[in-house]
Amino acid sequence: MMAEEKNQAYPKQRIMDAAVRLFAKKGFSATGVRELASEADLNIAMINYYYGSKQKILEDIIDRFFRGHMAMIGDGLKTPGGIEDKIRAADRAVLKYFRENEELAIVALTEFPYDVPEIAGYKARYISELLRIGREHLIPLLAGRLNVPPRMEILGPIMISAVISHFIFKPVIEKATDIELTDQFYKELGEIISSFTLYGLIGKP
Amino acid sequence: MMAEEKNQAYPKQRIMDAAVRLFAKKGFSATGVRELASEADLNIAMINYYYGSKQKILEDIIDRFFRGHMAMIGDGLKTPGGIEDKIRAADRAVLKYFRENEELAIVALTEFPYDVPEIAGYKARYISELLRIGREHLIPLLAGRLNVPPRMEILGPIMISAVISHFIFKPVIEKATDIELTDQFYKELGEIISSFTLYGLIGKP
Repeated sequence: MMAEEKNQAYPKQRIMDAAVRLFAKKGFSATGVRELASEADLNIAMINYYYGSKQKILEDIIDRFFRGHMAMIGDGLKTPGGIEDKIRAADRAVLKYFRENEELAIVALTEFPYDVPEIAGYKARYISELLRIGREHLIPLLAGRLNVPPRMEILGPIMISAVISHFIFKPVIEKATDIELTDQFYKELGEIISSFTLYGLIGKP
Repeated sequence: MMAEEKNQAYPKQRIMDAAVRLFAKKGFSATGVRELASEADLNIAMINYYYGSKQKILEDIIDRFFRGHMAMIGDGLKTPGGIEDKIRAADRAVLKYFRENEELAIVALTEFPYDVPEIAGYKARYISELLRIGREHLIPLLAGRLNVPPRMEILGPIMISAVISHFIFKPVIEKATDIELTDQFYKELGEIISSFTLYGLIGKP
């Protein structure tokens, strides 16, 4: 059943899906191309044909994640209303996106493989763009109310981490507490992240 | 020079230091025991003698990190004064600790090796303890002022992530911006993290 489903997808998509699963589970460095081929149910020649190298697959994962991530943030900030509505909409959209693409988000955000140092530079183009969006579209909305210096290179990572934190800590939080990861939990998580971010930014009036 | 310095440390400490370096760089799964022995400038028999397995070294890393982390949080919360003084003191201490033990913090917080699923359970004892400290010593101080539901299983990861975020994003932020990671930068980072956390928690008065 699983194999059938996999085989119906296009080969490039199957390689991408297999890579996201394996990089999230084992890390980029510990995943071999042979293993990737086996997980994707393809031969190694096909992986070479579509990607050429493991590094190119990771770059494709990063492209895909950040394009989606930026689209969610952009839509959120375009929401009509005040800053509170915009931040709540953006956090809701980003959280939904992370929940639906959990392994993609973890790999794209936290994987800095030692054997491919250029990956930090590859991600930097997206982070630069996110910082620019923050400086141009978020900071001006907060003008006069911002409780902290408008340093996006500090605030950006804090805001992204507020959303990813749940997914990074999930395996251990599930063991340490009796929470159930229901839709209701994620609704409350989204509200808490938004409140925390919003009041973290604008503080006391 | 480096080798001389390394050789002056006790073997167990050398194994630990080498493991923190390699796990942070390559990940737990991609690091071999042979490589570890070479990095520690010891033979494999010594690693087996002191630890028995790679998993035991990771457990020791987790023990060491969380004991230090909890001590910093405990000291911070014992600081005389109001909640603002306590949170600022705790964040300052934790940030200093993360800065001085950057690789240890990254490995202990973000490494969930697929080949050792029990590690999530191993970390859970520390996270349970941190959540208990939060419930008993932080939430009561915020009583009546808390702007978000007192759910430590959500607030705890957000608060820890606010500090670790800089270290996770550092390689890419360094490429994307022209920040210089001076003492002045870390002073400002600490103040922003504290303000964000404080106002994130208590919001508008």
